[in-house]
Amino acid sequence: MNDRDLGERLTGFACPVGSSGPATILMSHGSGGRLTQELIEKIFLPAFDNTLLRELHDGAIVEAGTSRLAFTTDSFVVRPLFFPGGDIGSLAVHGTVNDLAMCGAVPVALSAALILEEGFLIEDLKRIVASMESAARNAGVRIVTGDTKVVEHGKGDGVYVNVSGIGLVPGGVEVSPRRVQPGDAVLVSGPIAEHGIAILSVREGLQFDTALQSDTAPLNGMASSLLGQLGRRVHVLRDPTRGGVASVLCEIARQADVGIRILEERVPIGPEVRGACEILGIDPLYVANEGKMIAIVEGGSAEEALAILAAHPLGRGAAIIGETLAGHRGEVMMRSRVGGMRAVDLLTGDPLPRIC
Amino acid sequence: MNDRDLGERLTGFACPVGSSGPATILMSHGSGGRLTQELIEKIFLPAFDNTLLRELHDGAIVEAGTSRLAFTTDSFVVRPLFFPGGDIGSLAVHGTVNDLAMCGAVPVALSAALILEEGFLIEDLKRIVASMESAARNAGVRIVTGDTKVVEHGKGDGVYVNVSGIGLVPGGVEVSPRRVQPGDAVLVSGPIAEHGIAILSVREGLQFDTALQSDTAPLNGMASSLLGQLGRRVHVLRDPTRGGVASVLCEIARQADVGIRILEERVPIGPEVRGACEILGIDPLYVANEGKMIAIVEGGSAEEALAILAAHPLGRGAAIIGETLAGHRGEVMMRSRVGGMRAVDLLTGDPLPRIC
Repeated sequence: MNDRDLGERLTGFACPVGSSGPATILMSHGSGGRLTQELIEKIFLPAFDNTLLRELHDGAIVEAGTSRLAFTTDSFVVRPLFFPGGDIGSLAVHGTVNDLAMCGAVPVALSAALILEEGFLIEDLKRIVASMESAARNAGVRIVTGDTKVVEHGKGDGVYVNVSGIGLVPGGVEVSPRRVQPGDAVLVSGPIAEHGIAILSVREGLQFDTALQSDTAPLNGMASSLLGQLGRRVHVLRDPTRGGVASVLCEIARQADVGIRILEERVPIGPEVRGACEILGIDPLYVANEGKMIAIVEGGSAEEALAILAAHPLGRGAAIIGETLAGHRGEVMMRSRVGGMRAVDLLTGDPLPRIC
Repeated sequence: MNDRDLGERLTGFACPVGSSGPATILMSHGSGGRLTQELIEKIFLPAFDNTLLRELHDGAIVEAGTSRLAFTTDSFVVRPLFFPGGDIGSLAVHGTVNDLAMCGAVPVALSAALILEEGFLIEDLKRIVASMESAARNAGVRIVTGDTKVVEHGKGDGVYVNVSGIGLVPGGVEVSPRRVQPGDAVLVSGPIAEHGIAILSVREGLQFDTALQSDTAPLNGMASSLLGQLGRRVHVLRDPTRGGVASVLCEIARQADVGIRILEERVPIGPEVRGACEILGIDPLYVANEGKMIAIVEGGSAEEALAILAAHPLGRGAAIIGETLAGHRGEVMMRSRVGGMRAVDLLTGDPLPRIC
C-alpha cells in the first residue's frame, strides 16, 4: 500500500469526483464501490445496452440451444502475487468458479488468459499455473482454453490473470434479485473480511499472534448443497468480494427494491481480523472476501439454510445476519451493538486497491 | 517499436534461448512463434493436461447439456490503442468472434474485461467501449458480462482488454486438424499481412501513397457461408493472427501430421504491404492478420470454396495457395517465384511485439 492509498484511507475515503465525474481513471474506479458503479452505469451500460448486462450480476445467463448457460469473466491484478492462503492463480480460478456458483450454475469449463511482464520469472509462472490447475481440480472443473500475451518491462506487474467461465444452470434454479421478497432472511456463510485483511497485513508488514490467511476457496459445492435442498426458496446468492459485504448488500437492495437490515453483533468476524481492522481503521463490512457467500432465502427457511451452510466445511461459522424489509427501499441499515441504526452505503474511494 | 525490438528484427530474429529455455519471460514469448509454443508445451500443457487443451486450437469445444459449445479467450495488448482501420476494442471483439468462427461455431455471447491504468482518459475509454459495442453488433453477437480492474500508473499501458466468447457448433460441423487429408487444398481469404504492417507503419511513422489499414473484421459470416455450402468438406479453419500465415500453417502441419506446400506467387499481398515489408525487411508470411482466414478443404472442392469466399465482401482477393502432402509430415514448404523450395518454420524472436 503506498502513501497515497494510506492517505486516502485515513481521510475517510475522500471522493475526488465532481458532479460530472473525473476525466481520467482513478484507483477508486477499481474499488467495487461508488466509482466502479458510476463507470458501469455511465459508460458500460449505455454502450452495451442489453437486458442481460442490465441484470448487473457477476455473470450472465445465456440461452444456448436447449441449455441455460451462465457466463462470467474476471481479471485479477492482486498484489502481492503470492499471499497467505493462496496466490493470484488460485484466487482467479476460485473467483470465476464462485461467480458461476452465485448464478446457480454448475461450472463446466474455464479459460485462462495471462498478461505477462517481460522479465517475469518462469519459476513463478510455473507455480501460478500449477496453483490454477490444482484449484480447478478441487472445484471439479477444467481449464480448457487459454491465451498468453507479453508486455514490456514496466508496462505490467509480473502477471495479470483473466479467468472466464461457463456453467450449466440446472432446470428450476433461478437466483435473481427479482425474486427477493420483504421478510427474506440474509445469511453469510462464515467470518468476513479475511481475504482483504490477509493481503493488507502482508503489504503493511503487520504481525499477528496467528497467521491471517485469505479465505480463497471454491463455493460451488456449498451453493449446490443449498440449492439442492432449498430449491426455489433460495432467492439470491452473491460472493462479497471487492467492496465487501456492505457493497453486495447495497447492490441487492437497489436491484431487488427492498430494504435490508443487518445486526452488527450477528456478523461473524474472527478476532485477528477484528483486531487488524481496529488497528488499520478499516470497516470489515467493506473488506473483500474470496470464499464466503451471502444467501438470501425465504424467511421461513432461515434456520434450515443455516443448518445446510454450517454442515459444509466452508460454512462453519455461518450466520443469519439480517432480513429484508418492505420499507427503506434500496437502503441497507445496520443496528449496532449498542442499539443505534446507521446507514450502510457504497464505498467511496478505495482503501484496499488491487485486492483481487 | 523501441530500439531493442528493431535490433532483434534486424539481426534476423535471433533466438536468445538455451537448451533448457530462458529463466524469465522475454518479449518473444508473446510472438505466437517458437517461444510461445515452448511456453504452451513446457508449462501450460503439462499443468492443465486435458484432451481439450491438447487440441491446441484457438478455442475449445465443450459439451454442455445437449449442446456443443465453443469457448475461447483472448487478451489484447496492442499499441497504439487507436490505429488505421480500428482500435483495441474492435480488434478484441473481432479476435474472439473469429476464434469462435474458426471452431465452426456461431457466436452466442461475449464478455469484456478491462484492466485500466490509473490516469487513462475517460474519453478514450468511451471511444473503445463504443467501438466494442459496434463491432459486436456488426458481428451479430452481444457483450453480456464484464469486469473492470484498475492498476497504478506505470503498472499498465492505458488499457488491456480481454474478450472471451461462447458459440454454438451446429450439428454436423467438425473442423479439426484431425480431419485433414493429403491432397486437401489450402486457401486464404484475401491479401495478407495488412494488420501487422498497418500497426508497424504507425509506430515507425512510415508514409505510403495510400493509407495502410488494418484488416480487422469479423469472419463469422464468411465462415458460415463456407460451412453452410461445403459442410464436412471443410476440414480446418484458422485465422492467421500473431505469427501470421506461416505460423498457422506450421501448427496445422504438425497437428494434422501432413506436409503443406504453398506457392509464393499465389499468396495474395497488396502492393503497399509488399513495399512496406521490403523496406522493413520483414517476411509478410509472419505478419499478423485480423480479418483473414485460412481454409483447408477437400481437394476436389477447392474451386467451389474459392468461389464461396470470393463472393463474400471480406473474401475478395481469396486464393488457393497450396495443398497438403502425404510426405514431409509436420513441415511447411514454399516454392518461390523462381522455382526453388524453402522451408517455412515457426517464428523465432518477435519482430512485431504487441501486435494484438
